[in-house]
Amino acid sequence: MASFRQNAAASAPAKNMLWGGRFTGGLDPLMITYNASLRFDRVFYAQDIRGSIAWARANHHVGILTAAEFASIEQGLTQVSQEWASNTFAIQPDIDEDIHTANERRLGELIGKDVAGKLHTGRSRNDQVATDMRLWLRDRLDEIAAHLVELVKVVAGRAELEIEHVMPGYTHLQRAQPIRWSHWLLSYGFPFASDLERLREVRKRVNRCPLGCGALAGNPFGVDRDAIARELEFDGLMPNSLAAVADRDFVVETLQWASMLGLHLSRWAEDLIVYSSAEFGFVRLSDAYSTGSSLMPQKKNPDALELVRGKSGRLFGAMAGLMMSVKGIPSTYNKDLQESVEPMLDVITTVSDSIQIATGVLSTLSIQPENMMKSLTPDMLATDLSEYLVRKGVPFRETHHISGQVVALAEKEGIAMDSLSFDQLTGVDHRFEKDVMSVFDYQKSAETRAVRGGTSKSAVQEQIRSLKETLSN
Amino acid sequence: MASFRQNAAASAPAKNMLWGGRFTGGLDPLMITYNASLRFDRVFYAQDIRGSIAWARANHHVGILTAAEFASIEQGLTQVSQEWASNTFAIQPDIDEDIHTANERRLGELIGKDVAGKLHTGRSRNDQVATDMRLWLRDRLDEIAAHLVELVKVVAGRAELEIEHVMPGYTHLQRAQPIRWSHWLLSYGFPFASDLERLREVRKRVNRCPLGCGALAGNPFGVDRDAIARELEFDGLMPNSLAAVADRDFVVETLQWASMLGLHLSRWAEDLIVYSSAEFGFVRLSDAYSTGSSLMPQKKNPDALELVRGKSGRLFGAMAGLMMSVKGIPSTYNKDLQESVEPMLDVITTVSDSIQIATGVLSTLSIQPENMMKSLTPDMLATDLSEYLVRKGVPFRETHHISGQVVALAEKEGIAMDSLSFDQLTGVDHRFEKDVMSVFDYQKSAETRAVRGGTSKSAVQEQIRSLKETLSN
Amino acid sequence: MASFRQNAAASAPAKNMLWGGRFTGGLDPLMITYNASLRFDRVFYAQDIRGSIAWARANHHVGILTAAEFASIEQGLTQVSQEWASNTFAIQPDIDEDIHTANERRLGELIGKDVAGKLHTGRSRNDQVATDMRLWLRDRLDEIAAHLVELVKVVAGRAELEIEHVMPGYTHLQRAQPIRWSHWLLSYGFPFASDLERLREVRKRVNRCPLGCGALAGNPFGVDRDAIARELEFDGLMPNSLAAVADRDFVVETLQWASMLGLHLSRWAEDLIVYSSAEFGFVRLSDAYSTGSSLMPQKKNPDALELVRGKSGRLFGAMAGLMMSVKGIPSTYNKDLQESVEPMLDVITTVSDSIQIATGVLSTLSIQPENMMKSLTPDMLATDLSEYLVRKGVPFRETHHISGQVVALAEKEGIAMDSLSFDQLTGVDHRFEKDVMSVFDYQKSAETRAVRGGTSKSAVQEQIRSLKETLSN
Amino acid sequence: MASFRQNAAASAPAKNMLWGGRFTGGLDPLMITYNASLRFDRVFYAQDIRGSIAWARANHHVGILTAAEFASIEQGLTQVSQEWASNTFAIQPDIDEDIHTANERRLGELIGKDVAGKLHTGRSRNDQVATDMRLWLRDRLDEIAAHLVELVKVVAGRAELEIEHVMPGYTHLQRAQPIRWSHWLLSYGFPFASDLERLREVRKRVNRCPLGCGALAGNPFGVDRDAIARELEFDGLMPNSLAAVADRDFVVETLQWASMLGLHLSRWAEDLIVYSSAEFGFVRLSDAYSTGSSLMPQKKNPDALELVRGKSGRLFGAMAGLMMSVKGIPSTYNKDLQESVEPMLDVITTVSDSIQIATGVLSTLSIQPENMMKSLTPDMLATDLSEYLVRKGVPFRETHHISGQVVALAEKEGIAMDSLSFDQLTGVDHRFEKDVMSVFDYQKSAETRAVRGGTSKSAVQEQIRSLKETLSN
Repeated sequence: MASFRQNAAASAPAKNMLWGGRFTGGLDPLMITYNASLRFDRVFYAQDIRGSIAWARANHHVGILTAAEFASIEQGLTQVSQEWASNTFAIQPDIDEDIHTANERRLGELIGKDVAGKLHTGRSRNDQVATDMRLWLRDRLDEIAAHLVELVKVVAGRAELEIEHVMPGYTHLQRAQPIRWSHWLLSYGFPFASDLERLREVRKRVNRCPLGCGALAGNPFGVDRDAIARELEFDGLMPNSLAAVADRDFVVETLQWASMLGLHLSRWAEDLIVYSSAEFGFVRLSDAYSTGSSLMPQKKNPDALELVRGKSGRLFGAMAGLMMSVKGIPSTYNKDLQESVEPMLDVITTVSDSIQIATGVLSTLSIQPENMMKSLTPDMLATDLSEYLVRKGVPFRETHHISGQVVALAEKEGIAMDSLSFDQLTGVDHRFEKDVMSVFDYQKSAETRAVRGGTSKSAVQEQIRSLKETLSN
Repeated sequence: MASFRQNAAASAPAKNMLWGGRFTGGLDPLMITYNASLRFDRVFYAQDIRGSIAWARANHHVGILTAAEFASIEQGLTQVSQEWASNTFAIQPDIDEDIHTANERRLGELIGKDVAGKLHTGRSRNDQVATDMRLWLRDRLDEIAAHLVELVKVVAGRAELEIEHVMPGYTHLQRAQPIRWSHWLLSYGFPFASDLERLREVRKRVNRCPLGCGALAGNPFGVDRDAIARELEFDGLMPNSLAAVADRDFVVETLQWASMLGLHLSRWAEDLIVYSSAEFGFVRLSDAYSTGSSLMPQKKNPDALELVRGKSGRLFGAMAGLMMSVKGIPSTYNKDLQESVEPMLDVITTVSDSIQIATGVLSTLSIQPENMMKSLTPDMLATDLSEYLVRKGVPFRETHHISGQVVALAEKEGIAMDSLSFDQLTGVDHRFEKDVMSVFDYQKSAETRAVRGGTSKSAVQEQIRSLKETLSN
Repeated sequence: MASFRQNAAASAPAKNMLWGGRFTGGLDPLMITYNASLRFDRVFYAQDIRGSIAWARANHHVGILTAAEFASIEQGLTQVSQEWASNTFAIQPDIDEDIHTANERRLGELIGKDVAGKLHTGRSRNDQVATDMRLWLRDRLDEIAAHLVELVKVVAGRAELEIEHVMPGYTHLQRAQPIRWSHWLLSYGFPFASDLERLREVRKRVNRCPLGCGALAGNPFGVDRDAIARELEFDGLMPNSLAAVADRDFVVETLQWASMLGLHLSRWAEDLIVYSSAEFGFVRLSDAYSTGSSLMPQKKNPDALELVRGKSGRLFGAMAGLMMSVKGIPSTYNKDLQESVEPMLDVITTVSDSIQIATGVLSTLSIQPENMMKSLTPDMLATDLSEYLVRKGVPFRETHHISGQVVALAEKEGIAMDSLSFDQLTGVDHRFEKDVMSVFDYQKSAETRAVRGGTSKSAVQEQIRSLKETLSN
Repeated sequence: MASFRQNAAASAPAKNMLWGGRFTGGLDPLMITYNASLRFDRVFYAQDIRGSIAWARANHHVGILTAAEFASIEQGLTQVSQEWASNTFAIQPDIDEDIHTANERRLGELIGKDVAGKLHTGRSRNDQVATDMRLWLRDRLDEIAAHLVELVKVVAGRAELEIEHVMPGYTHLQRAQPIRWSHWLLSYGFPFASDLERLREVRKRVNRCPLGCGALAGNPFGVDRDAIARELEFDGLMPNSLAAVADRDFVVETLQWASMLGLHLSRWAEDLIVYSSAEFGFVRLSDAYSTGSSLMPQKKNPDALELVRGKSGRLFGAMAGLMMSVKGIPSTYNKDLQESVEPMLDVITTVSDSIQIATGVLSTLSIQPENMMKSLTPDMLATDLSEYLVRKGVPFRETHHISGQVVALAEKEGIAMDSLSFDQLTGVDHRFEKDVMSVFDYQKSAETRAVRGGTSKSAVQEQIRSLKETLSN
């Protein structure tokens, strides 16, 4: 029969586990690994210590700690922080369950347990970990915002420099109408700018202080939560102590934000992968962002772009996983919430790297205007031909039909549309006049689309100005 | 398949076609169904017509339409709209592929094809459908915001009325500390208020005008996009025509928003389902939101809450599905984007209903304060006992250990913690004094947690005020 | 809300109810809609009736029903079924909550409530709905299997017919090595065949009988569950009554299966969309599966393929949503499980249509071998050049490097690799001999890859045979 | 303006990068990190080497390698493997991009580049990495199957030992009918057994050999793929070389499998979390799988179960992320596929640990039968009361109504249903006879549900036998 595990055989709980007071049973070594978080939450060491100093100060102000005790704690914690920073902190396996207990354990060694043992007064790991995560995340979001600004600047910069080049615009991956290369660049610049706008909104909700909420019910010693929040540069308080320890919205929202950005990057990468194929040939990626094949000597693969595209899945998966973890759990803190940390860490790294790689790719690729030109074909001006007739007063639906017949005639004759004779054109519709041939000019076609948002040079220049303005908000 | 494409006779299927049973006359009937969207996009009929009128007016202003033509179109479209509203619009199956072609087909019948055929000048279904969706969604978001305000008001209202009642607060679904029922109510009120805040941010980006962007490259007749946007009460323009037709961020963002709200509702429902079990018994749901069993006569099931919880999956699935549809597709319009409409419609209905049902459940349930009281047990005051010693100057870590020993002693003796004798308490630690018994008072315990966000009456009252203020933003 | 619960007068809403505008007579009309399932579960009418007849027969065999009662029920239910089939069943809004209550209500009208009221003896809607869903799904899976067989046959058929054509094979969307078009076709045929294999595994678990499990605890009248299962053509029983009513694995598994198939279709569609772009031009889609543009007369868009690709998201979303709905709910039946029905229905339609559309597209497209040839370039034979040297005894790593230098030389000279002179080649490496030029032959290159699974004609033919064999399993 | 990165400034590519032959540009250090996989794919070192030895043997058999060369390679690779195993392999940062290049680089140092440089002949990293992953995963799945067998054995073992205990069965988390505790245990045993069945199906498809497929087109030197597969203990070949390098179905399928198991574990954990609340109190978790609170001394939290529940999200997220990464990418190998490795590794660890933790929790918890008894209330026998009348010939629907009236009467009187007098019962319906009181017996109620799958002792015993049989398949 299946062996029911014997408690007795397992070792007694470690003496100074925070919750050890009344437990007598054995321990499952796998459970220690399964439960422990230090291997990933150690990244919060500086935030944990900064928060603890603010907490000690607040407790000093309400008389829980004397000035001397506070000074001792502050000095001790500073030393702990330096140990982490210099990579000399000695982790005690099986004892240091998480960053909070590790730091307090070490503090006790440095300044004595009597004073160190006062630090956690009125606090719980529930509000502590939320504080650590929010502080850490806030700073990372600021770094990411800076990377995103760089990316948008590269978009705007290239769009300015390379505004002359006209290329096929596609819908359904079929040639549609001539557009400016800069117009294409900007079509991703604006979504990236929206990502930046959204990021600022998310940051505002990330940057709220849960400290002082205790395990769930609030602090009984009257600590000044507003002062703590100010010291830690939070924008405000989490307004309800139950919600403060229950909440991982700030992570979910960040991950939703990141996976939206991932969608933008995935489409941008797809376009460039297609454009860098031999068949399109519009762009050439820098060697720095390409790799070769271990078998095929001629290959130059757009690995950087493929990774950017592939990692959109990773960002999405992190979001999806956390959302499922959170779904349907009861209110306040449940251990399920520990599952919010690793996706957050992974997403921050992934999104930060991906933006920088995208910036690198975009700033080093070279365009191949001659191939863009080669891909422009007269049938892409069928709409212009139709519009020519509209200007002559023919109803659009009719012009659409006529232009379609011209396309069909050219196909049937096996020649380009602009090689049809004037007679052939008037054979289709008598309202074509001699000036019709002026329609077959790609630059001119682009210039007619001069409304706001369009592909004419002036419209594109206005977009560049407008995109740059979003950066200064 | 209403075909705008007449430039070639539909090529007959290849002679040696391997398959063809279903295939007649060059058409696959299933393809017509697979491709058509009228069965769901007809919901946009009013927006489509409103947008078309604005479009016609703009074309009139640039001389594409005469005043008479515009008047005729406006009058005709108004009649089409009335036909939809009165359910007398006669759909032509296999011809009316989508709401856009249906409306234009009908307009032609009413005012003649010559004038009707001018309506679509310089416009594409690509910018048209995006306009319809944004107009429709904007209005739905406003309705949902109103429902959400109602829900938050019910939270605040009950929290005010029932502030006296103290119940067990849980972490890990284990009894933790006494809290106010109102405090629990508010712990969901604030996340709902954040949902409202986020909704306002999303609306801002939904409410931007894509009209005038054409198929992808912009309008060639100089229509005034700003005037169109003003007429349609948009907050601004989509700034890049390629991005305008490519973008379904406004849907993705709405779905992300809704699935975050779904997470809140799922946890709220989970709490109430647990609280309405016989074992907890804190609340009794109104019959209006319960159902019985077809087999078991005694059953009263919290179906409304279970549906609310279950539909959090539905909201998430809609978001996840759309995000996958969008991932990695090339820029501008691809037919894949048609897959954005149905999830949007479903989510709007689901989220709107769920909020209203939640409001109904919450405003009609009755609380069972006597059961809340029964579930309060002296061990929930172990923290207060520890804090008692902190106030006597004992370091917290020591007090935590001592209090743990008291809990263990009570367990060992098989009595409640507050039934231990003073001698038994001082046997654990000599620093307990006679006033220790005053610790065992649930209301008093709640009142000690008086910092901002805490569970004392004044702290809860401040939260109610603060929550109400969010509604007037 | 057809209420089986009559044990108490519906308690009036609390007097001080905070909300109540919509609420009249103790009922919320929205709750009726929110809770009811008839609008979608009516699709199970035949299964519900077939199951009820089997149930009545089983109850007759244990003496709950007399022979006459059973005959009456059987005849009555048959009539109800005919009413549904002929679309004459008169639904009673607000009374017919679901297909089960609707059918029983109507049965009572037809044969009297006394006998009809015995039908539900020992049964619950919990086991009833699971039975309906499994019966319905089993039959749909068989239909889908047949569609999938058709698709695989088209793959095999085209692969046989068009085996001569060589095209570029791509990795990273960069030209890699020459492959047969048939080899590409088969590269999707095998995943589709795996989908068929998996489908058969899923069906086996779908086709298990939950009837006789009651609400959760099993039947108290000794009905013969095996006999019921045989009558309903189930493969076996659900072995545990609690699990039988709790289980939606059969839906989750089906949705996981479908979303895997969706991934295959999405990649297949992506390839064909790229191959049908003007730049690649390898295939031309039949007009039957293309559409035009409302603005651009020359457009022919691969809408069918884009929808197939886009709907992979829809399939995934249905799966993701249901998985979240199921996550973390307590055991046995919870109303959350009602959320399993709609995704199942939608997925079955979507996957069935998508397979058929894919079959239509694939069997009617025409290939453009001349464009395939045009895209074959000598640098795609760099690996063959390297292998040429391997055959001369040069270590592969060295040959890879040498061949890379030849590619670079050709690039530098601006000529094709096969236009380099023999002197230029030996200038790179002296081991090149006169026979080197024989390397530059695409057909020959393909023929060298003759191991199982390779792209030589014989290897491809073996694959075709092997693929066909999977269909007869 | 944004700084366009300068190629020149970056360092030249490392000399022995596999693809280095013709690249001259600079490198972005972040790109090296972003692209490299050694930090995670090093876990495959043994599989990579085993595969390489098989590959070398196959090349020896076709004359690419002499006997001496093969012997040298085999001996060298064995030493490389030992270096990894003994943790003495010296990784060269920035050079060892992945496990494949690292192993070959080291092999060259050990046996010389001339022979080592022949190892990769006719092979690509595309087929190599797929081989490594499949070999590694196959072995992990076997380990997981063993863990799952243990879990099912614990279920069956406890079910046998504790079959006497009756507890409330719940639907909608409301008390429904009395069931055996063993019946509840088995209600998860069968889903776990299905997980085992599915695992065996997945393994079959994982264990297929891609080696010999090259980059995409197959091997040109006639290696014997069947012999390679036999040596590596694969069950068969990947039948198409393009599909072989494109395929990550084997990972997706594994992740789908794992996330289904995660759903089972999440519901099982939810039940036990609820059952271990103070209010239910049916089970007591071993201290080994509980933790305390850093603030509240009395707390004993079911952390192990919450982590198991929470990690169901993690499993799902990994699946969802990979599916999105794969969606819509072109056929054969794309670098996006590198994103399949990390989710696979994480899921294998998570699912393996979670099963073992669940086994630990289940095998060490203690049940509290007295609390189960206390939660059984007479209204849970309302169905039995109804069935009592059915046995007297009253139509079920009528009995359901009558029993409902009895429940209502008891509620109104404020007494338990079994405390109603005989007169009160006959006051509701005259068909009640003196033997009616025998209905109010929980054990007897359970014993009546004796059909297959039911909760009677014999039915449960049959389930135990049947569950055990599934293990020997």
